[in-house]
Amino acid sequence: MSPLKPTSTIGILGSGQLGRMLAQAAATLGFDVVIFSPDKDTPAGRVAKEEITADYLDEVMLKRFAEKVDVVTYEFENIPVETVSYLQSLKQNCFPSPKALNISQDRLKEKKFFGYLGIETAPYFEIISLQDLQNAAEEINYNGVLKTCRDGYDGKGQARIKSAGDVAPAFQDLGAADKILEGFVPFDFEASVICARAIDGSVELFEPARNIHKNGILHRSICPAGVLDKTLNAMNEAVTAIAAKLEYVGVFAVEFFVMEDGDIIANEMAPRVHNSGHWTVEACDTSQFEQHIRGVAGWSLGSAERHFDIEMTNILEDAKQWQTYAETDAALTLYGKREIRAGRKMGHITKRLAPKM
Amino acid sequence: MSPLKPTSTIGILGSGQLGRMLAQAAATLGFDVVIFSPDKDTPAGRVAKEEITADYLDEVMLKRFAEKVDVVTYEFENIPVETVSYLQSLKQNCFPSPKALNISQDRLKEKKFFGYLGIETAPYFEIISLQDLQNAAEEINYNGVLKTCRDGYDGKGQARIKSAGDVAPAFQDLGAADKILEGFVPFDFEASVICARAIDGSVELFEPARNIHKNGILHRSICPAGVLDKTLNAMNEAVTAIAAKLEYVGVFAVEFFVMEDGDIIANEMAPRVHNSGHWTVEACDTSQFEQHIRGVAGWSLGSAERHFDIEMTNILEDAKQWQTYAETDAALTLYGKREIRAGRKMGHITKRLAPKM
Repeated sequence: MSPLKPTSTIGILGSGQLGRMLAQAAATLGFDVVIFSPDKDTPAGRVAKEEITADYLDEVMLKRFAEKVDVVTYEFENIPVETVSYLQSLKQNCFPSPKALNISQDRLKEKKFFGYLGIETAPYFEIISLQDLQNAAEEINYNGVLKTCRDGYDGKGQARIKSAGDVAPAFQDLGAADKILEGFVPFDFEASVICARAIDGSVELFEPARNIHKNGILHRSICPAGVLDKTLNAMNEAVTAIAAKLEYVGVFAVEFFVMEDGDIIANEMAPRVHNSGHWTVEACDTSQFEQHIRGVAGWSLGSAERHFDIEMTNILEDAKQWQTYAETDAALTLYGKREIRAGRKMGHITKRLAPKM
Repeated sequence: MSPLKPTSTIGILGSGQLGRMLAQAAATLGFDVVIFSPDKDTPAGRVAKEEITADYLDEVMLKRFAEKVDVVTYEFENIPVETVSYLQSLKQNCFPSPKALNISQDRLKEKKFFGYLGIETAPYFEIISLQDLQNAAEEINYNGVLKTCRDGYDGKGQARIKSAGDVAPAFQDLGAADKILEGFVPFDFEASVICARAIDGSVELFEPARNIHKNGILHRSICPAGVLDKTLNAMNEAVTAIAAKLEYVGVFAVEFFVMEDGDIIANEMAPRVHNSGHWTVEACDTSQFEQHIRGVAGWSLGSAERHFDIEMTNILEDAKQWQTYAETDAALTLYGKREIRAGRKMGHITKRLAPKM
């Protein structure tokens, strides 16, 4: 694909806050945006030129969408692979390719992919029967998490296993879905790396952020993450290998567990811009959102250079305390969500702690 | 007016790049935006929730607009004062008030207003007849500019007077419009100050920028401007006095001529965000666009602190060389304008020169 001209149109599958911030970055580069999702009056749709509301498998509407846009990308990984394959069958450029979606939609495939690249993961076991789980749980000394292979996020679709008594209820809880048991890893903290890759294969890595979760949901990301050089190098090598192997175009994120000794274990990847990279807007020459748009537009990437030590904090359902945020002197981003629900991400706050040393 | 809640709607009169960047800033704070202008498929409309296309004096459509929005603001000063007055008659909150519009729409009123506040201006003369012009031109030694009092911008509606022979043609050229003759001032350079004022009267001043024009159109703004302390203080005092006198809400800009000795002369004010303040997006904690939205939303202002030495360069009709811009590592902003015309502002580039010392 040759680089898109400004005033070209970028189609985004998905309509939440990530789509909203992608649409804003696209507009800043002079692009128009069309949003496609099953929802109406969405955070992303309200900042886009047009919003199409239809099921992700509605081929008539997907075709109409494809006629309006010059390239398609997506804001979350649970878009059906069929959707992207159908768009590609219409000769529609879609970035990143469905390969990345396919892998990251399934925890088992993802773990195998990491292993294939020599990237260490937590011990894991494919679980089909209760017997599988009983055997595997024993092998990891009843210290792990049973997860659905697909569709889980923000702590949903997971059950902690701490004793033999947890095994049967956990298996029951997760229902008929494909499952994976992941052994617990005694990590020191979690860190993530946001990587951008252009069509020409060039790569820009953002510095890793240290992530702090609350109730299974990202609470805060801090950059610099305070990692050893060997840790930084190992993370960057892993991410670069993933980018190359997938011939990835756009931005993706990889979460790592960092051990006491600085060794790393890959937790999961997200084939999209990532909550733990929102700080790049205020801290870096080019944000993760602009990098993604530059990538999928066939442009060269911007510089990922960081200028500030920075801390990003999510605003969950307590966004009703908006007045506090209106008065803070940290950078405030709200997603325009009308309905406040428990655990729903309503916005985030970014605080510049100091100029980067 | 009490502070607007996020997901409230901000109405913007005008639909160009300033409206676009205001709409983007509003969205980042969680607001919806409705654009009102006589044009269709506009730079601002394409990033807003809704775009209303109607004449500024169409009361039926203005009423419909008012029903959709919680506050009205505008992106340029040539909105008819009647439009804002009509909206106010519907109990619609409008910021800034029509007072600022009224003054800055008329060069003569503006000069008198500056004079009233003790802010020095170039020598000026109200011109009704050719005889007026002949007398006044002689008084300034045939070294000045004849301007229409209203509607001129980017060098339009102006005629340079350098000799007695220019007088009659200049008078002819500008037609029946009200006119003002401004004596030429031998200034060293132009600088501008962007000021934000909140409903509670608090003020945040951005540091002045040095402006370089080409063919009567802003070419480049540089911050810091390299002015003496006494110049900085004089500019800030003048701007603060203007803000207070107008009980201004939102952002406005004042352009100054800076003399060799550091004295200043006010050139003109713009009751809106300003081209010479675009660098605030990349250099400051809070951009001029966010400050304006915070102001008109009844929020407290953000910090105007600057972190980088910075240079903003306008991209005029040569935006067709977009590929160059796609490859630069400076921050690129394009306005999504489809039609390239001579002298039309298509975007701008901001270069961070160094961390602020």
